[in-house]
Amino acid sequence: MADATPPAPTPQETQEGPSKSELKKRAKQAEKDKKAAEKAAKQAELAQQQAATEGDFATDFYGKLPLHQSQSRSGKTRVAISSLSASRDGETVLLRARVHTSRAQGNKMVFLNLRQRTDSVQALLLVTPEKVSKQMVKWAAGISDESIVLVEGVVKKSPEPIKSASVQDVEVHISKLHLISGIEGRLPFSLEDASRADEEVASSEVQMNRVLLDTRLNNRVVDLRTQTNQAVFKLQSAIGDLFRGYLSSQGFIEIHSPKLQGAATESGASVFKVGYFKGNAFLAQSPQLAKQMCIAADFERVYEVGPVFRAEDSNTHRHLTEFMGLDLEMTIEEHYHEVMELLDSLFLSIFRGLKEKYSKEIEVVGKQFPADEFKWREGPEGTLKLSFREAVNLLVEDGVDRAVLDDINTENEKRLGRIVRAKYETDYFIIDKFPMELRPFYTMPDPEDPTLSNSYDFFMRGEEILSGAQRIHDAEFLCKQMKAKGVEPDSMKGYVDAFRMGCPPHGGGGIGLERVLMLFLKLNNIRRASLFPRDPKRLEP
Amino acid sequence: MADATPPAPTPQETQEGPSKSELKKRAKQAEKDKKAAEKAAKQAELAQQQAATEGDFATDFYGKLPLHQSQSRSGKTRVAISSLSASRDGETVLLRARVHTSRAQGNKMVFLNLRQRTDSVQALLLVTPEKVSKQMVKWAAGISDESIVLVEGVVKKSPEPIKSASVQDVEVHISKLHLISGIEGRLPFSLEDASRADEEVASSEVQMNRVLLDTRLNNRVVDLRTQTNQAVFKLQSAIGDLFRGYLSSQGFIEIHSPKLQGAATESGASVFKVGYFKGNAFLAQSPQLAKQMCIAADFERVYEVGPVFRAEDSNTHRHLTEFMGLDLEMTIEEHYHEVMELLDSLFLSIFRGLKEKYSKEIEVVGKQFPADEFKWREGPEGTLKLSFREAVNLLVEDGVDRAVLDDINTENEKRLGRIVRAKYETDYFIIDKFPMELRPFYTMPDPEDPTLSNSYDFFMRGEEILSGAQRIHDAEFLCKQMKAKGVEPDSMKGYVDAFRMGCPPHGGGGIGLERVLMLFLKLNNIRRASLFPRDPKRLEP
Repeated sequence: MADATPPAPTPQETQEGPSKSELKKRAKQAEKDKKAAEKAAKQAELAQQQAATEGDFATDFYGKLPLHQSQSRSGKTRVAISSLSASRDGETVLLRARVHTSRAQGNKMVFLNLRQRTDSVQALLLVTPEKVSKQMVKWAAGISDESIVLVEGVVKKSPEPIKSASVQDVEVHISKLHLISGIEGRLPFSLEDASRADEEVASSEVQMNRVLLDTRLNNRVVDLRTQTNQAVFKLQSAIGDLFRGYLSSQGFIEIHSPKLQGAATESGASVFKVGYFKGNAFLAQSPQLAKQMCIAADFERVYEVGPVFRAEDSNTHRHLTEFMGLDLEMTIEEHYHEVMELLDSLFLSIFRGLKEKYSKEIEVVGKQFPADEFKWREGPEGTLKLSFREAVNLLVEDGVDRAVLDDINTENEKRLGRIVRAKYETDYFIIDKFPMELRPFYTMPDPEDPTLSNSYDFFMRGEEILSGAQRIHDAEFLCKQMKAKGVEPDSMKGYVDAFRMGCPPHGGGGIGLERVLMLFLKLNNIRRASLFPRDPKRLEP
Repeated sequence: MADATPPAPTPQETQEGPSKSELKKRAKQAEKDKKAAEKAAKQAELAQQQAATEGDFATDFYGKLPLHQSQSRSGKTRVAISSLSASRDGETVLLRARVHTSRAQGNKMVFLNLRQRTDSVQALLLVTPEKVSKQMVKWAAGISDESIVLVEGVVKKSPEPIKSASVQDVEVHISKLHLISGIEGRLPFSLEDASRADEEVASSEVQMNRVLLDTRLNNRVVDLRTQTNQAVFKLQSAIGDLFRGYLSSQGFIEIHSPKLQGAATESGASVFKVGYFKGNAFLAQSPQLAKQMCIAADFERVYEVGPVFRAEDSNTHRHLTEFMGLDLEMTIEEHYHEVMELLDSLFLSIFRGLKEKYSKEIEVVGKQFPADEFKWREGPEGTLKLSFREAVNLLVEDGVDRAVLDDINTENEKRLGRIVRAKYETDYFIIDKFPMELRPFYTMPDPEDPTLSNSYDFFMRGEEILSGAQRIHDAEFLCKQMKAKGVEPDSMKGYVDAFRMGCPPHGGGGIGLERVLMLFLKLNNIRRASLFPRDPKRLEP
């Protein structure tokens, strides 16, 4: 394994601002490299010694296991660290875990902090006559952080709480220790460094060990192992579950619409072009057309969870070129507020679900990303709903020039968020009745004022997380509106035809999953809410 | 609306075989066209009469409603057809529905079959002094099939069961009838024609009204309205729910991996190329790499439901260029059979869930696509598991030349399915231990015989629906295997690096959602199991 190239850390200057102590950092890094090299050399030496005295690999008590190829099946139960507690005092357990940190004390004792996802326990290896040899302790001391080990040991009540572990009332006294998977080269950063809050980094000596966002994303697999990221992506999964669960209870079914489109839909710009055999295809920038066609096809209420693609060359904290859309579309009986109200109930159901079932994860993330708890309004007063006009007035009252408020730009959105929070004590609100000229051609105009539309945006902490509207379900009127916006109806024939065959009034909305996650937790950059984010400059890993 | 072009039906010769009576068909079609034109003319005339006598639109009792722009909100409850029954005899109800069929009897009575998804009820409009005018009945008689109407009427017990409707014990006596959305042009085919079973079509006069698959797909929005398709896509949604529900109960979380990749992954061939700003990207042909990287990132158990893209120019009954992958990956403690067994339990949970909760939908589909009920083995004997070698032996015993069985091709897969069903009475089985040379580079070889691998395929009715394996988690060994298969490790650096930073043994599998749906229901063509299918020749609608 010695010939393997270690992954190069690339601490580029990114959104997080330039590092002020690049030189110091490099010196520190060089020192780290040296230490890592020494550790690796030591490990190699130990492995040789071991091989010489005990054969090619693992003894019964310690050593590197042969490559796991499913050689046999003992059926022995392996335990979860989270299941360990004082009630299991004296029990011998077997577990697979990652070595979070290790610390040798003299040449007779090694402490290992063992980790499984967000759980950890302290384990202790101590020279014991006829049980644990000096050789074994020496070998154990050479195991790299982040290696994966198989441990057999006895659960022992701890006289005092072990603060460095999530399981605090017991430790594991190791009797057997085997390496399942080691580290080649060195880690791009330590998990300790990767887990620090920005505030902590800014205010202390550890500034030089700050792990920049680009470095994290270049080495995302290691970055994702932090407790924070384990919690972030558990919460991402939870939002999807809550979304589907609520809609399922309201009679929706899940659909899957194609991402490969024959024509550049919705608008000609910002669509990725795909080579498709001898011709071209385009990546859907939303399931808008397909989900409306499902309404024309009598599905009544549909949702989709799927990737959407935006070929916009903007490198902001809140844009990705590929993100997860949580989309829904439903028939309307009398009024598009039926849709808006259902979407509101959906969000409340998600917020409540997160707070009730995932408070532990929210708390974990809060340690690295401190934030005021996300606030929404419950009870009879309900969610704050402003018309676009009212929102503009709030901004004008706050000192913004009305002349620039034909649209509300990102900066003013955030300002509005602050105004609303101060005045209404909520981080979540709805703006209804957007001007028609700000919305796409398929948006239904207001019945009384054709300059307005039956459309709405939802906001969290002053940023848009949902856009939706009543859609035009009448083919003739749709064609008229398309032409007015410079779209040739024939270019979207399949879509327009759907409405010629009879279509009920309907509306819907599209939610950006990563935005909801980012804003609920105040992660400050959408890349942190995406497993392997994609932006104009990033297609890897 | 008269200037709108009706969608052209395109009865091309497709997978379903050439139509034998194309000329007859065209004659029939011309006649249909004539009738439709007459109906449209009649409708226009009526609308004019109405406008002349009663103003521009809707009276209180009948007529076309103005464009639904959410003008007002009465809060009046509209009912679901499925909620109607004899216990509501005498009740006045309001409902929105599609006109499935209409039939005038003389000039005093019109029968409407009203439909909502898979539910239908008979409604009756009868000239009644001071309530229902002759004019109203005449107008109603002109409403096209598939129009959407708003009906107010009284529920009346029916003296005898109404066989043409799903609600058989009542009918609705209409007092008010308004058109919400009409038809422009003519329907590409009637829903009645689109709902016929192949057998029925083959054996009767209606052959000439046979609706070919391509015609259906070109007019998918209308095609999707059949009871069969409403049930098919409810079942598709159900499979997703059952998949997630089971995995969630087993400690999995949902992930979303990017479909845009920086490099052509897994193999150079059959990947779609995307223009990505000034460079190129590629569409992921599976979440394989990302889900393995999640294992290296300590997620332990992950699944993904997402589109996968295959640029294979093959127009078979079972290939799509874009389909939904149900993927999972999990750590292994001792043996990859842990994964295989979990996948088996997952499938049993899906099959049982469908049978228990969706028997009505399965029955509906069975009317158009008659099939032997899907069979699997329950109880202590469990699912049939064959080794690749045993599967080959079964084929050889059945008369296949062993010399051609280095791989089992599609034809022999089906033959094996028939052998297995006859011998073991199951449509569902597993083949384990595929030869290494048939599997991708990341597959773990068998520990004892390096020509075999720790990999498996799952089959339904003799067709593969899942492929999976233990993966190589050791970077050094992975590089060796990559080189042996002609893949340059540096071309997939992010992936290989993930294993250098320590990775537990793991395995998983990928399921084709549309294949499971197609084979469970025996739909015979995968396009029927996809909402808007994509193949080398089809990117629309």
